[in-house]
Amino acid sequence: MKGHFNLRKRVEFADTDAAGIMHFASFFRFMEVCEHSFLRSVGFSAHPPGAEAGGGESSTDVGWPRVHASCDYKKALKFEEEVEIELGIEELGTRTVSYQFHFWKNPDDQEKRTLAATGKFTVVCVCWGEENEGMKAVEIPSQIRKKLEEIRTA
Amino acid sequence: MKGHFNLRKRVEFADTDAAGIMHFASFFRFMEVCEHSFLRSVGFSAHPPGAEAGGGESSTDVGWPRVHASCDYKKALKFEEEVEIELGIEELGTRTVSYQFHFWKNPDDQEKRTLAATGKFTVVCVCWGEENEGMKAVEIPSQIRKKLEEIRTA
Amino acid sequence: MKGHFNLRKRVEFADTDAAGIMHFASFFRFMEVCEHSFLRSVGFSAHPPGAEAGGGESSTDVGWPRVHASCDYKKALKFEEEVEIELGIEELGTRTVSYQFHFWKNPDDQEKRTLAATGKFTVVCVCWGEENEGMKAVEIPSQIRKKLEEIRTA
Amino acid sequence: MKGHFNLRKRVEFADTDAAGIMHFASFFRFMEVCEHSFLRSVGFSAHPPGAEAGGGESSTDVGWPRVHASCDYKKALKFEEEVEIELGIEELGTRTVSYQFHFWKNPDDQEKRTLAATGKFTVVCVCWGEENEGMKAVEIPSQIRKKLEEIRTA
Repeated sequence: MKGHFNLRKRVEFADTDAAGIMHFASFFRFMEVCEHSFLRSVGFSAHPPGAEAGGGESSTDVGWPRVHASCDYKKALKFEEEVEIELGIEELGTRTVSYQFHFWKNPDDQEKRTLAATGKFTVVCVCWGEENEGMKAVEIPSQIRKKLEEIRTA
Repeated sequence: MKGHFNLRKRVEFADTDAAGIMHFASFFRFMEVCEHSFLRSVGFSAHPPGAEAGGGESSTDVGWPRVHASCDYKKALKFEEEVEIELGIEELGTRTVSYQFHFWKNPDDQEKRTLAATGKFTVVCVCWGEENEGMKAVEIPSQIRKKLEEIRTA
Repeated sequence: MKGHFNLRKRVEFADTDAAGIMHFASFFRFMEVCEHSFLRSVGFSAHPPGAEAGGGESSTDVGWPRVHASCDYKKALKFEEEVEIELGIEELGTRTVSYQFHFWKNPDDQEKRTLAATGKFTVVCVCWGEENEGMKAVEIPSQIRKKLEEIRTA
Repeated sequence: MKGHFNLRKRVEFADTDAAGIMHFASFFRFMEVCEHSFLRSVGFSAHPPGAEAGGGESSTDVGWPRVHASCDYKKALKFEEEVEIELGIEELGTRTVSYQFHFWKNPDDQEKRTLAATGKFTVVCVCWGEENEGMKAVEIPSQIRKKLEEIRTA
């Protein structure tokens, strides 16, 4: 995967289910944690305009609701496993970004390192109008686009 | 338990954990579902002023953040079990309400019906001030107090 | 959608996020609740062999891990909204089932009834081998296949 | 708090609710993450005997189901805030451990550092009997007790 950002994350007990493995919906929470961590790494908060953030990052007045999310599952993840989540930018549109995610099982073991899952988000850049107008799609601000372009072509 | 409200709820797969039973934190979600269902049953939405509700219930301009939540666990609940949650009002203060909850396992089997857990919430009635002021405790509105008093002494 | 099963479900507070709407990952939990409710409606428990179920349904000795899950988001769902989830069977393979899901917002209002989201699961029929062997894909048992075929062609 | 273990954790988007703050039940998930991180820090996996762990820690053949969990909420936590969770051992019984937790808001700011919440778990040491016997309380194994005693009196 070209242009990527990596995050290590442990499978916590509340992420698992009665089949003894990470619940399939928890993969989507992990992808979002990776996406937000990536945004912070390039200087932006992922907080929606309507919600005040606590991290002190640059406010950008835009939010990133998902229009698509998907995941393909290959290997189960178990409680307390540490997984490496790799984020790449697949497409960068005027108002949309498509992220792809790779979940690496046994990330530090060259022989056992293997793909546990792959995923994808398509998010839309929005800003909030006046009260009751709701949110509307807008062009990705240039300072953010610049950072996304850098990671996409790294 | 005097003065009560009952809700049946099934243990879903995402509520369980790798020990094969309902995760201990899911009991708090169930108590909240019961509390909100009770509030709707007496005509009020539980939505916070800052968040628009979709149910069409009377807006009351107050919210109910918790200041205390606790649970005592006696029997495990399994995936797909139906549990009966019984809500009672333990104390009704000027600005606070203390709810107690009983989780009944095997609710329809007179011989096997048994307590799986008991819980408690203390919630404070708040309204929202001007922007950036945050929320502040207020007296429980009289039309809500009347309903709570009815259930407490039923 | 031909051949379908419907479930009404309310958006609970714990399903929402700081953007004031249902969190995108909660849609996957809702789809699973609908899938399991469908399986119970035709007489089968969805519990994995390794986890004892509490509902008393026929044990089938098979489980249904996902190999794919996706969701396309069109309209936000708010706290306390009741949504109708419609399940259909898109494909019925020898060992796999593809479910599609429609989330109907304002389900009882003929004018406002609208699609909030569509989703898809592909699940594999598995049984558990001897200890440490893990699970392996198997043909869908005939009594289950019969029920799935009925709903697919209804 | 004497004898403590500290963990930093960020409030993720899925931990928040439509009131714009961390959902009250998420505090219990955070406490469990801290407890398990503490157990790993002294060399033990927190995985239940029935569930295989992925972290490679020493297997101890015991599990730690909760019999009590509680939380008192003082200050709201916002999306992307980093909180410091401090674990202490309040009581060490023959078969039980009582942990207390402090949630520190603004942990790195000496002037603004303040308690957001305090919590408590009482957990029981159990082992699993033969199939269908379920779990039963046992004495805390001596090698674990030694470590717990160290942290309690540190």
